[in-house]
Amino acid sequence: MSKKMRLAAFVTAGPGRPGGWRYPGSVPGWLDASYYHNIARTLEDGRFDLAFFPDILSVPDRFGGSTDSQLRYGALGSLRVDPLPVMASMAAVTRHLGIAATVSTSYAQPFSVARTFASLDHLTAGRSAWNIVTSFQESEARNFNLDAQFDRSTRYERADEFLQVAAKLWDSWEDDALVLDEQAPLFADPDRVHRIDHQGQYFTVRGPLNVPRPPQGYPVLIQAGASSKGKDFAAHWSDVIFCSHASKESAQSFYTEIKERAATFGRDPDRIKILPSITPIVAPTAARAKELAAEIFELVPPLGGLSTLAYHLDVDLSTFPLDERLPEVEVPGVEGHYHEVREITERDGLTLRQLGKQYGGRTEGDFIGTAAEVADGLQEWFTDGAADGFTLQVPYQPGGFETFTRQVVPELQKRGLFRTEYEGVTLRENLGLDRPARGEWTTRAGGAA
Amino acid sequence: MSKKMRLAAFVTAGPGRPGGWRYPGSVPGWLDASYYHNIARTLEDGRFDLAFFPDILSVPDRFGGSTDSQLRYGALGSLRVDPLPVMASMAAVTRHLGIAATVSTSYAQPFSVARTFASLDHLTAGRSAWNIVTSFQESEARNFNLDAQFDRSTRYERADEFLQVAAKLWDSWEDDALVLDEQAPLFADPDRVHRIDHQGQYFTVRGPLNVPRPPQGYPVLIQAGASSKGKDFAAHWSDVIFCSHASKESAQSFYTEIKERAATFGRDPDRIKILPSITPIVAPTAARAKELAAEIFELVPPLGGLSTLAYHLDVDLSTFPLDERLPEVEVPGVEGHYHEVREITERDGLTLRQLGKQYGGRTEGDFIGTAAEVADGLQEWFTDGAADGFTLQVPYQPGGFETFTRQVVPELQKRGLFRTEYEGVTLRENLGLDRPARGEWTTRAGGAA
Repeated sequence: MSKKMRLAAFVTAGPGRPGGWRYPGSVPGWLDASYYHNIARTLEDGRFDLAFFPDILSVPDRFGGSTDSQLRYGALGSLRVDPLPVMASMAAVTRHLGIAATVSTSYAQPFSVARTFASLDHLTAGRSAWNIVTSFQESEARNFNLDAQFDRSTRYERADEFLQVAAKLWDSWEDDALVLDEQAPLFADPDRVHRIDHQGQYFTVRGPLNVPRPPQGYPVLIQAGASSKGKDFAAHWSDVIFCSHASKESAQSFYTEIKERAATFGRDPDRIKILPSITPIVAPTAARAKELAAEIFELVPPLGGLSTLAYHLDVDLSTFPLDERLPEVEVPGVEGHYHEVREITERDGLTLRQLGKQYGGRTEGDFIGTAAEVADGLQEWFTDGAADGFTLQVPYQPGGFETFTRQVVPELQKRGLFRTEYEGVTLRENLGLDRPARGEWTTRAGGAA
Repeated sequence: MSKKMRLAAFVTAGPGRPGGWRYPGSVPGWLDASYYHNIARTLEDGRFDLAFFPDILSVPDRFGGSTDSQLRYGALGSLRVDPLPVMASMAAVTRHLGIAATVSTSYAQPFSVARTFASLDHLTAGRSAWNIVTSFQESEARNFNLDAQFDRSTRYERADEFLQVAAKLWDSWEDDALVLDEQAPLFADPDRVHRIDHQGQYFTVRGPLNVPRPPQGYPVLIQAGASSKGKDFAAHWSDVIFCSHASKESAQSFYTEIKERAATFGRDPDRIKILPSITPIVAPTAARAKELAAEIFELVPPLGGLSTLAYHLDVDLSTFPLDERLPEVEVPGVEGHYHEVREITERDGLTLRQLGKQYGGRTEGDFIGTAAEVADGLQEWFTDGAADGFTLQVPYQPGGFETFTRQVVPELQKRGLFRTEYEGVTLRENLGLDRPARGEWTTRAGGAA
């Protein structure tokens, strides 16, 4: 089989699942560089395409308007180290692994973000990726001079213009602008470095950037859009799409829809890699894997899971009775997570309390079993048009990455589904993506907003 | 002698002096992580306190309203990699070296900056420093949605409030807030993590930060204030002051003034380390050092030096005749550099063209000679109350750092003027600075603006 699976690892620079940090195999090293270095080496040994860091700009308080449950249970976002310096640090001890950091377009300026990623792309020799988010928590807005966040439509309009400006800045140095002729002298050719003179609705930026064009042209762009606007944005801009599905069927339908949207925007659907999230639990026997899943599940405090879900949905779940089913609600947050949660609630008849535990300990796609069984499941999604590869989540860090790398990766390699050596130098090369030519942004800009 | 000199190295993440990149010993590796790793190792071998990265948020165009001379001659700011990821990358290959990055308070948000430095301080295990600038170039404002920059008084008011917010955020987690009790479970104690609810003139920030209190309490704070407002700001906030003087006498007068101002603000003057910039040129004989200085000087394109000076002074020097002396001018930019330039112009009777060459190739303090002669000069400044140590600038990178480390550092160590081993773990410990207690910001806030 020649078509290869892509593998990303979802790494949290802080506790991930609210039960994970309680597991004996978990190491609470999120504040230490060596923690990330170890994970980076493990992933590179496993020939992963990239490490993917989510982010959030506040301690969430969407459950009861308080940060208490988030902090008490170590739920998502209770502690979150800035992923950008983590990327630079991990890159210093690896040579091939791509590294993606999440940065919001709602609370940053395009000159700064374009410059940081251009710098990171040079410093990593073309291994940087940007997971673009627009942020959707009131608590984030309140850390940035606002009483309330921008509405969704404003966020996506701003994001679209943000990306246009960033692409113009990455293009502001022609690829051969840096001459370094000591004799002439000619350091950089002024005729090949251009102002961008952007004047838009949200941003006015003159340029040029003070960093030459990135090795990858643009960093790899990642998006996780589940809303209709989000899907358009993702189909327009993304090289990689991160998503979350409770079943192969819903993953297939998302996969088909995104590839079709991309085609209508004039993009080659093969140039967008869709990597659904999985959380496998692997053990020497199927029985031991089930036991392990139960042990980890047991460690999830229901309120820790619920406060994470409240954050994801952007709905204050503390206002609903804990021992009844969650009614249908309006979800301003991540629609994909809501669809997943509804599917699980209906299927298993869960009360809100049970849902909290389930959500906090969730293992999407039910990849629980031996390495061969997990590989079977991944192979099925991959060959049945549900995924171009996967984003590996683990119930606890860093052990979950080690187990998958030592046990599942060799199984995938044996079946010819996954690389045994890195194919290229840059992340784009390893992902099988072209280096965007200067000016390619013009074919992507607008329309998505 | 028990009192020890402090040494910082001024490292540019891009070309520094406009002649430096033309020198055969220069390596144009500013886009590669290995370039910074090599410099970091050299400085750590030399027991330097810290590497110090300047920064600017545009390609300067202050000479004739165009970026041409900056780009053509590789003058300051023509290319500038973001120093924050460089810091993280250098820290990954060192254990003791402190690393300072410049970040402007005029074009960033305090939540983001406080979080990035808290993250870096954890990832470096307490070796981070922030060089606080307010930015003063029109070209920077134009990359951030503005037609014109804030006036100086607004910049310093904003900077003072920015620092207050940052300090509150660093204090928002009590030192023992992260509990990590898996049994309880109690990840972090909600009673020891606090909102800051800051509402000021420039910023509204709720907090808490999503990163625990930094190992150093606050990162080491560095400032280079030469204006009266700048000196007040520096005397208020700084742990380390970076400055530039053409003579021991002017350094002494600045040193005395800052220490006195600090005392009037209720601070212990010994807790502020003043490190004037030096650019020594060292060779086995005094004659060879003079020759080397002349060779390097020869490589400076006068217009490269002038466009750098135009940027530093924030004055369009293209409007003055090149073969006459620079008249007295109003300087909105760095007053310290202007005083230095006037001193040199008068003393040596230079035309503007000559001044450009002189400024581009300048070696402050005239430390040119053998290692012993350079050490004599440093010792004199140090013992005569002109400096607590020095910020080493080099005519070309990375060779200049290697020469100083191999030749001058052992001479200083032999005389008991400089450490042979690092004394502490954190940068504060090595600099002989206390770890600020939580709430210390209240004694520093206000007043400086």
